[in-house]
Amino acid sequence: MKGPFNPVEMIRSKRDGHRHSAAEIGDFIEHFTSGAVADYQMSAWLMAVFSSGMSDGETVALTNAMLHSGKVLRLPSVKAVKVDKHSTGGVGDKISICLAPLVAACGVAVPMISGRGLGHTGGTLDKLEAIPGYRVQLTPLRFERIVREVGVSMIGQSAELAPADRRMYALRDVTATVECVPLIVASILSKKLAEGIDGLVLDVKVGRGAFMKDLKSARALAQALVRVGSRAGKRIVALLTAMDSPIGRAIGNGLETREAIEILRNSGPHDTRELTLMLGAEMLLLGKAERNLPSARARLERALADGSAFDRFLRMVKAHGGDVRAVERPERLANAKAKFEIVARRSGYVSECDAYALGMSAIALGAGRTRADQAVDPSAGIELCAQRGERVTRGQPLALIHARSLPLAKSEALRVEQAFRIGSTKPRSRRVVLGRVSR
Amino acid sequence: MKGPFNPVEMIRSKRDGHRHSAAEIGDFIEHFTSGAVADYQMSAWLMAVFSSGMSDGETVALTNAMLHSGKVLRLPSVKAVKVDKHSTGGVGDKISICLAPLVAACGVAVPMISGRGLGHTGGTLDKLEAIPGYRVQLTPLRFERIVREVGVSMIGQSAELAPADRRMYALRDVTATVECVPLIVASILSKKLAEGIDGLVLDVKVGRGAFMKDLKSARALAQALVRVGSRAGKRIVALLTAMDSPIGRAIGNGLETREAIEILRNSGPHDTRELTLMLGAEMLLLGKAERNLPSARARLERALADGSAFDRFLRMVKAHGGDVRAVERPERLANAKAKFEIVARRSGYVSECDAYALGMSAIALGAGRTRADQAVDPSAGIELCAQRGERVTRGQPLALIHARSLPLAKSEALRVEQAFRIGSTKPRSRRVVLGRVSR
Repeated sequence: MKGPFNPVEMIRSKRDGHRHSAAEIGDFIEHFTSGAVADYQMSAWLMAVFSSGMSDGETVALTNAMLHSGKVLRLPSVKAVKVDKHSTGGVGDKISICLAPLVAACGVAVPMISGRGLGHTGGTLDKLEAIPGYRVQLTPLRFERIVREVGVSMIGQSAELAPADRRMYALRDVTATVECVPLIVASILSKKLAEGIDGLVLDVKVGRGAFMKDLKSARALAQALVRVGSRAGKRIVALLTAMDSPIGRAIGNGLETREAIEILRNSGPHDTRELTLMLGAEMLLLGKAERNLPSARARLERALADGSAFDRFLRMVKAHGGDVRAVERPERLANAKAKFEIVARRSGYVSECDAYALGMSAIALGAGRTRADQAVDPSAGIELCAQRGERVTRGQPLALIHARSLPLAKSEALRVEQAFRIGSTKPRSRRVVLGRVSR
Repeated sequence: MKGPFNPVEMIRSKRDGHRHSAAEIGDFIEHFTSGAVADYQMSAWLMAVFSSGMSDGETVALTNAMLHSGKVLRLPSVKAVKVDKHSTGGVGDKISICLAPLVAACGVAVPMISGRGLGHTGGTLDKLEAIPGYRVQLTPLRFERIVREVGVSMIGQSAELAPADRRMYALRDVTATVECVPLIVASILSKKLAEGIDGLVLDVKVGRGAFMKDLKSARALAQALVRVGSRAGKRIVALLTAMDSPIGRAIGNGLETREAIEILRNSGPHDTRELTLMLGAEMLLLGKAERNLPSARARLERALADGSAFDRFLRMVKAHGGDVRAVERPERLANAKAKFEIVARRSGYVSECDAYALGMSAIALGAGRTRADQAVDPSAGIELCAQRGERVTRGQPLALIHARSLPLAKSEALRVEQAFRIGSTKPRSRRVVLGRVSR
């Protein structure tokens, strides 16, 4: 492309299936950030990308352009290797809350910047805010200091980091251009690379409650993330993990933070612990704290058992102004006014526990949001009394609905009850981790 | 689609190659007109249509939705059959100016609403305004009265007619979604149907100086226009006509109006007259004023010969407040301050006369515009002293450049000279009409 920048030629080129150069992509995003490329031009280009695709080289260029649309953290005073984890989103996914301090306790720094929940999957930021006083908005300098001193800090996205991604994501959401691998890859990586990390572990969720419904499309996304992230110069690995049923027994912000604290106290549901250990072991490897997965796992288990992981969490909460008493007495995090019990109508084995349906119920109860400007109720949610594969007898509780009023809790009773399927025979157990993609 | 209108689902559906129902398209355009569908959503949908296409049924629905986004004229007091002509745009295309009064003189009413020029092709409105005093903006009632009393009125588009088309066209222009047959068809037909016509003759231009560069794509557009226009209940026929060289000898608003007046006075360049007669005969057929093309042509020739066509033009100009003296002494329409002559560098036959290059020169001279808000100079343009196929001797004038200053005229000398190719042998003559598409 010669002469002055021409967004129409850029759109036409992608529309006709041509490849952009890195310079063209850089120009396009720069002009979008400055306002010279209008939203309607960006959305036409996004749709052209949806139809025509992008090569890895183009996706690397887009990631870099979006990354450099704002501030890029460097954290120069943090001497430890810095590794983060990103999940594509699941129901009951509280893993970050226990994983980040656990990994920090094992010597790898975790500078984690998270988002809020939108739709049926939750957001780490909403879960952290269930801890009274916990501040998610800190200056980059304060963030760096906490990472340096505590080894882990978890904050919210600021308008300074990858602002192009924020505006592009908002457009994609309202123009049916979300489900597009290169755009997803550039969106995830540009935000994560702005944290100044050395390595990244990706948890790509697969199944009914996930964005990717089948293993094939999830694997394609994971592979693209690993390829593009590697070309952008980061150590990167992805796990494909199951998201048909919720993770653990808690759905809803306070309830999930409570469960994460149980994990940090060497307790809690088996599947939540297992996923934490699997992802944590990968992070220790990328962070060069351990040489192989078994030794990494053993080290993580020791940090859970000896209290150092929980201690790390307490220090992080304190550094963020959070109420450590609420962490020490986590029953305070589940103080909904009303609770309504759902019981099993028959005896048998829980053969299905529909993550999507429960995620939608959680939104209705006030635990999630469908629009970015909605507030959430930290105490609302669903506590699962039985997980998939467990035996239940008629009349035994399946779930406890937490809400700010009894009518609201009852209004979701039918949907929660129908999310459970009870069969006569024990269902085949399912793996937590379905695959692994590395460079 | 059930429940409240969801533009994202609409975009997703077209993105995935599905067909919209007429009701969905109606809803979408209605919500776009009201502002509930944002420009960035419309542009994403337009790009999805570009990729996925639309059926004739969808295009009919889109045409109707765009048509009914504004006022639709009925002209109830006009008893004659109403037929209009639309050209896809060419260089030197002044046919409307002579065609409309000629057809009206033969008993078919012509309620013609035209646009301004944009890019290398001119606009009828700019040509009419070269006549001092001619008013192109009239109320619908005044328009109807002139059509009733004079049989012909030529005015400009108003914001009330097909407003959705205006906004959609502006978006297409800046999002690389112009070259898409169903969108072109709906844009043309929605505007023309808003005139309250019974029939429409389309002049689909083909060649270097046209929007459609080759016969195949022009024929596809013509066929789509005829199919969709017929399904929308109109009598419709399309001629495919050559646009490699300019039409006639005049390019530029005043110069072209002068040439149109020559035609109305039974004189002027052969090709301009021929195209006028071919299109006019089709209009008389659609208007049921004649039964076959030879008799229609004979009637048109009589109206040119007996002065009734010119008289009709004078009456129309007068009804629009225009200066009839300028029409009676059309040399007044070509009063540029500076004229610069381009002469033949060798003797031979003019084998090419590049319409596109001359159209671009005309813009540079001030006869056209590249942005909708630019003013045009009515006296600027290019007068061709030799047309394709003519023999010239070295030093003989090829063209006369008209401009407001000599430096400006000279600045286009090279481009105008290079638009002509002179060969040793007489080139094969080309047909004016390359094809005809009817239902």
